[in-house]
Amino acid sequence: MALSFSIVGTGALGAYYGARLHHAGFETHFLLHSDYAYVKEKGLRVESIHGDLSIANGSTAPGNFWANLAELPACDVVCICVKSTNNAFLRELLASKIKPGGCVLVLQNGMGIEEEIAEWVKPAYVFGGLCFLCSNKVGPGHIQHLDYGGIRLASLATNSPQAISLLEEIRQALVTAKIETGIDKNLAQARWQKLMWNMPFNGLCVVLQCSTLQIMNNPAGLRLATQIMEEVAAASTACGTPVPQGFVQKMLDNTRRMTPYLPSMRLDFDRKQAMEIDAIYSRPIARAAEHGYDMLHSRMLRDQLLVLQKEVLHA
Amino acid sequence: MALSFSIVGTGALGAYYGARLHHAGFETHFLLHSDYAYVKEKGLRVESIHGDLSIANGSTAPGNFWANLAELPACDVVCICVKSTNNAFLRELLASKIKPGGCVLVLQNGMGIEEEIAEWVKPAYVFGGLCFLCSNKVGPGHIQHLDYGGIRLASLATNSPQAISLLEEIRQALVTAKIETGIDKNLAQARWQKLMWNMPFNGLCVVLQCSTLQIMNNPAGLRLATQIMEEVAAASTACGTPVPQGFVQKMLDNTRRMTPYLPSMRLDFDRKQAMEIDAIYSRPIARAAEHGYDMLHSRMLRDQLLVLQKEVLHA
Repeated sequence: MALSFSIVGTGALGAYYGARLHHAGFETHFLLHSDYAYVKEKGLRVESIHGDLSIANGSTAPGNFWANLAELPACDVVCICVKSTNNAFLRELLASKIKPGGCVLVLQNGMGIEEEIAEWVKPAYVFGGLCFLCSNKVGPGHIQHLDYGGIRLASLATNSPQAISLLEEIRQALVTAKIETGIDKNLAQARWQKLMWNMPFNGLCVVLQCSTLQIMNNPAGLRLATQIMEEVAAASTACGTPVPQGFVQKMLDNTRRMTPYLPSMRLDFDRKQAMEIDAIYSRPIARAAEHGYDMLHSRMLRDQLLVLQKEVLHA
Repeated sequence: MALSFSIVGTGALGAYYGARLHHAGFETHFLLHSDYAYVKEKGLRVESIHGDLSIANGSTAPGNFWANLAELPACDVVCICVKSTNNAFLRELLASKIKPGGCVLVLQNGMGIEEEIAEWVKPAYVFGGLCFLCSNKVGPGHIQHLDYGGIRLASLATNSPQAISLLEEIRQALVTAKIETGIDKNLAQARWQKLMWNMPFNGLCVVLQCSTLQIMNNPAGLRLATQIMEEVAAASTACGTPVPQGFVQKMLDNTRRMTPYLPSMRLDFDRKQAMEIDAIYSRPIARAAEHGYDMLHSRMLRDQLLVLQKEVLHA
C-alpha cells in the first residue's frame, strides 16, 4: 500500500513537498497554524518554477488540512517541517501521530534534532531529510518555489534492516512525486555537509544584511564565507566524517550560480521571528567541541546572532 | 611664548579640545569644512558636561575660523582631528602649516598614522594624542561633550631631546586648558591600549546595531567584546609592548560604568559615511601579522565591516 504522509508545518518548505506528494497521489495531511482558516477556505497556493502545485479547497482527499496536532491523523511518514525553534510542542503527541511501522522524517536544518526526536517517539524510526530548496512564503497560504528542491535521506539507526527498507520506500515515493532524492549512508556526515552551506550563509546574511550573491561578489564577504565553510569542513573531519576533496569550492561555485537568495534565518530575522541559532550553530559547535575541535569563527558568528536576537528582535 | 594651535577638523573631537584651548587663552585656529559658513556667522556651540565652551562669532581673536587648509595660518601645534579616512588631503600642504620648531599632534584613532604623517612633514616632530572622549556632533557647529576628555601624549621619535621638551610644553598647555593629560613613553604601546577599546566596541556596535552598554549587558556580547579585547592585548604583547595584568578587566569595568555610547564608527555608519576600518582594523592587524600574530577575531570583524561599507553604505 502507498505510504501516507503528514506535513507538520505547512510553510515554505512543508507546503512545497506536501503539494508534490499530494499531486503524485499520496495521502497527504497538512498541519497549519496561523494560515489554517485562510487555507481551509481558499486552498493552498504553491507556485513552483516547475509549474503550479496549488491545492484548491475541497480537492485534498485523500488528505486534508488540519488546525492542530491533536486532530492530525496518524500517518506512515510524519514530516517535521516547522522551525526547529518550535519543536517543543511536538514532544507530547508526536509518537501518536506515527502509524505502526512508520517513521518521523526530520526536514529541518541543523544538527542533533533526529537524536532528540528519537527520544520522544521510541521505538519508531527517525530519518533525516536534508532539503536543498529555495522556497519562500510570500503571503497567507501562498508559497513561491524559486530553485532546487532535492532531499538527501539518511537514517539515524543504520543497523536496522526494517529502517533501511522503509527509507527506500520513502525514496521511491519522493521519486514518484518528482522530488530529486537519494540515500546517504551516514546521517551525521550529510548534516555536516548541509551545515557547510547553512553556517556561513544563514548567519552572514543576517549580520551583514546581504543576499548570498552580495556576499559571494564581495571580496571580504567571500573571505568570510570561505573561512566559515572550511571551518565546518574541518569540524566534520574532526567528528569522523571527512569532507571530500574540492567540496568547499564546489559549494561556493554552486552558491555563486544560485538565484540571489535570502536564507531562512535572514527571513526570520526580517520578520522579527526567532532564529534557528541553536540547531544551526550551537549544536554543531558543541558536537565539534566534544571531538576536540574549536569552531572559532562559527562561535563568533553565533554570539553575534545571539546579540541580534536579544537586542534587536527582543526575542 | 605661549604655543599656538590649529584644529584641523572641527568636529566632535576637534571642536571640544579647540574650545578648551581657546578659552584658556591660547591662539587657536579652527579649520572647518561643511559647517564653515554656519559657524562663521553663528559661532561654535560646544556644550560640555563641565560647562559651556561655546565660541561666539567675532570672539575668537587671537585665532579664527578657516574654510580651507591653504589659508590656515602656520601654528606651533597642528592638531589632526579629521577622520583618518580623509587624511590624503593633508599631504601636500601640511608641512607648510607647522611653524619652525613646531609639530603635528595626531588626535586620531588607529595605528600607524603618525609614521605616515611623519613622511609628509619631515623633519617636523610628530606626536600622537590618544583621546578618551565621549563627544558627539549633534548639528551644524554644535557639539555635545558627554563624558571623559583626557589625552595621553606620546612622541613618535623618542630619542630627540627637543621633541621631548616640546611635548612637555604641550602637556602643560593642555593642563592649563583643563584637559586631563599625561605623557606615555611608548607611542605604539599607547596606541595598542587605545585599540583594546576601539577594536571591540567600534566594530561590534556597527555590526550588532547596539550601544556599548547593550553589548556589555548581553552575555554573548560581553563574550565577543572580551575575546576581541584579549586578542588586541595578545597582539600588543606579540609586538613587544606587553599589556599590564588586569588591564582587560579594568577596561571592561570602565565600559560598563560609562554612559551608554555609540562609538564614532557607529555614528559614521549611521550617517552613511566611510568608516575608519583601515586605521582601526587593517593597520593593527597587519602590524600584528608582521610580528607573527594572527588577529583572527579582528580579521573576521574587519571583513564584516568591509562588506557593510560596500554593500550597505555603497562607500
